[in-house]
Amino acid sequence: MTQAIAEIKAMLGDRLSTAEAVREQHGKDQTWAPGAPPDAVAFVRTTEEVQGIVSICSSYETPVIAFGTGTSLEGHFTAPFGGISVDVSAMNAIIEVNAEDLDARVQAGVTRKALNIHLRDKGLFFPIDPGADASLGGMAATRASGTNAVRYGTMRENVLSLTAVMANGEVVRTAKRARKSSAGYDLTRLLVGSEGTLGIITEVGVRLYGIPESIAAGVCPFPSVDAACQAVIQTIQLGIPVARIELVDEEHVKAFNAYSKIDLKVVPTLFVEFHGTPAGTEEQSGLFGSIAEELGGGPFTWATKEEDRQRLWQARHDAFWATKSLMPGKEAFATDVCVPISRLAECVNETRADLAANGLYGPIVGHVGDGNFHVVLYCDRSDAAELARVKGFYERLIKRAIAMEGTSTGEHGVGSGKMRFLELEHGVEGVAMMRRIKQALDPKNILNPGKIVAL
Amino acid sequence: MTQAIAEIKAMLGDRLSTAEAVREQHGKDQTWAPGAPPDAVAFVRTTEEVQGIVSICSSYETPVIAFGTGTSLEGHFTAPFGGISVDVSAMNAIIEVNAEDLDARVQAGVTRKALNIHLRDKGLFFPIDPGADASLGGMAATRASGTNAVRYGTMRENVLSLTAVMANGEVVRTAKRARKSSAGYDLTRLLVGSEGTLGIITEVGVRLYGIPESIAAGVCPFPSVDAACQAVIQTIQLGIPVARIELVDEEHVKAFNAYSKIDLKVVPTLFVEFHGTPAGTEEQSGLFGSIAEELGGGPFTWATKEEDRQRLWQARHDAFWATKSLMPGKEAFATDVCVPISRLAECVNETRADLAANGLYGPIVGHVGDGNFHVVLYCDRSDAAELARVKGFYERLIKRAIAMEGTSTGEHGVGSGKMRFLELEHGVEGVAMMRRIKQALDPKNILNPGKIVAL
Repeated sequence: MTQAIAEIKAMLGDRLSTAEAVREQHGKDQTWAPGAPPDAVAFVRTTEEVQGIVSICSSYETPVIAFGTGTSLEGHFTAPFGGISVDVSAMNAIIEVNAEDLDARVQAGVTRKALNIHLRDKGLFFPIDPGADASLGGMAATRASGTNAVRYGTMRENVLSLTAVMANGEVVRTAKRARKSSAGYDLTRLLVGSEGTLGIITEVGVRLYGIPESIAAGVCPFPSVDAACQAVIQTIQLGIPVARIELVDEEHVKAFNAYSKIDLKVVPTLFVEFHGTPAGTEEQSGLFGSIAEELGGGPFTWATKEEDRQRLWQARHDAFWATKSLMPGKEAFATDVCVPISRLAECVNETRADLAANGLYGPIVGHVGDGNFHVVLYCDRSDAAELARVKGFYERLIKRAIAMEGTSTGEHGVGSGKMRFLELEHGVEGVAMMRRIKQALDPKNILNPGKIVAL
Repeated sequence: MTQAIAEIKAMLGDRLSTAEAVREQHGKDQTWAPGAPPDAVAFVRTTEEVQGIVSICSSYETPVIAFGTGTSLEGHFTAPFGGISVDVSAMNAIIEVNAEDLDARVQAGVTRKALNIHLRDKGLFFPIDPGADASLGGMAATRASGTNAVRYGTMRENVLSLTAVMANGEVVRTAKRARKSSAGYDLTRLLVGSEGTLGIITEVGVRLYGIPESIAAGVCPFPSVDAACQAVIQTIQLGIPVARIELVDEEHVKAFNAYSKIDLKVVPTLFVEFHGTPAGTEEQSGLFGSIAEELGGGPFTWATKEEDRQRLWQARHDAFWATKSLMPGKEAFATDVCVPISRLAECVNETRADLAANGLYGPIVGHVGDGNFHVVLYCDRSDAAELARVKGFYERLIKRAIAMEGTSTGEHGVGSGKMRFLELEHGVEGVAMMRRIKQALDPKNILNPGKIVAL
């Protein structure tokens, strides 16, 4: 390790840090996943530098852990076996924007907001919005999604190609720029969601979209979670191209009203957004309103004005802070299950009953068009009894989702936190297949060891 | 081999055939790729039978080659090293349709038309349409797409999960039914497009869509290929959700007029289709018409009536037979490059100039929304000089597409025919990565050996 650090230091100079504060910051995320600092942090600027570091680390069998903005939520970038954290945040060049092809290529450290600011005057945007201003490299690595996925897909659908440094130091570019290809194994999709365990992503090719001529957003109250979920199902089945459709439960509405000084009825509520032509969004909004009304929901109040929309979505985005402000002194703990939407109401209702039975505060917010919802648990970790109830609830939540043909994680990823649920979800054989891939591509287990599958 | 066949015979009885005609039919596709018959053909009914066959073949290191409908175009199912062809066409059960979740699960032998007939009275459809009535297993294995991909994506986007028998005889189900997941490596996308070389697909989970309330289709003539491509770019950039947008060149129009008794102007022509509400498709058609007009195209004549639409798309689907009827005695040879759409006009124009310079007849048809186009070459293979010109053209076509940041194959796959272009497209490192994956998952090289990557 000392030798590896010395060689990297010779290459990067001051851009390799072993300062304790820097190491700590690169070894602990904002969740309650246990932290573990790396031995050093390399602030890289180019693919070649990453290649150099990986080659050195390969020689000394030293772990290499990619770091973007540090906003991931499953302990993805902790260094339980030490090693070198490769911080790509200075790799922030937008390499090319091909407006006619609706694609762009960026270095891995470019954040989604930086990309969108760059694109704005071209009339283009990149839709994937996980909330945090994450780096594109990190979003690709965790297969991120967020509120827009119901319309635009996740990083799975929106990454066209990747450049990555593999464990043996080779640089692979996974695809050229064609929209589709049947030319061999899908290396792009294999790296998307691999959380730095198969290769270190240094460049990302992404799909872009034209900024819609008209964006209409609104809120719609419902008498029950079931009615709200039924509205979502009917909306999607009718082919209404809803851009966002988010469920917030009563607990969240209460918190919004207090925190964001708005005045919503305290019932399960859908936040929706439509993208299209003015006539198109008006028609879509009207159709959605009728569906809601038939299910006893509504009135659906909608806003086409930019400031009204912003205020609405700001409240939604502040959900975390809104609920946190009601729970001073408690730590928040995010969950991320996703089920087929036909099972969503059932899953949410059982989950709420479980919360109530255990006296837990866990407001729910969901990307319900995808069947994905987050229970944000609040817990005082010094209270052993509460902690035990939270842990039991968490275990049951994930098992419930998988039993309903869903997944332990819709968008946050596995990291170290969800490894123990992988066999339940993918079977012993599926996890064995993942392990064989990991072994083949990283035989020394130097890339983010201890995440996804243990060798 | 004899022993392997005897053991499989004991399991399947009459459903294992070594008849020459059956073997020939399972060893040669409709293209001019060289055929190579398997030693026996197994007509399987269940995943367990496939598992049994693969286990036996693994013991004896005998090749196993999956066979669906035999409609693939790159020699995918030939058996250059002999072995057992596993014909899944009798695995034709539709296992489940989850209307609320817009998904279905089928056995691998179910064809797309059979699925759509089953779905019709539920108001649902499966959009991927590669032309042939291919099996869903085969379509997944080759990452098929076709005319609808511009709107609905390819098999990459529309396969939710797969069940596959791996080389070691283990059965892997790659995902549950959630719309999205970040739970580990994307085994689904790794198997989609793997052409039977990593596992034998026995069940396919697919996305479904509601049948659109309104479908509008039409044709629009253009003064040049450039103008037509520019119309495509502007249409997509404006976010008009075109469902199909197909370019046919003058040669094709001539052939259509003769074969399908229609009367189109002999110029580059776009066939387009819109899906949506009646108001939506009317608006989309109007916007498209304005774009075409500004580029000197039009008039855009459109049809919402089912019979008019059918007649139009029938002509498009009969493209192959229409051109073939003009070239009696010649063999057809399909190509399949795909480039970024900004390069499409340039690529098509250079390709047409190349055809002309070499005195070749090669009408062009393209899924231009994706940048994918097919030159259908006609050749008398007994004419050595013509054959040499065709081969030279083919080589230049693929290199041209890759030089324009495109791919050697948009939707047909690699098979044995395009292996030699893979390194040009993915680099030595990319192909080495594919080879490492193949080695890890099929160390004895029994699954469709000699395809995609050679071990």
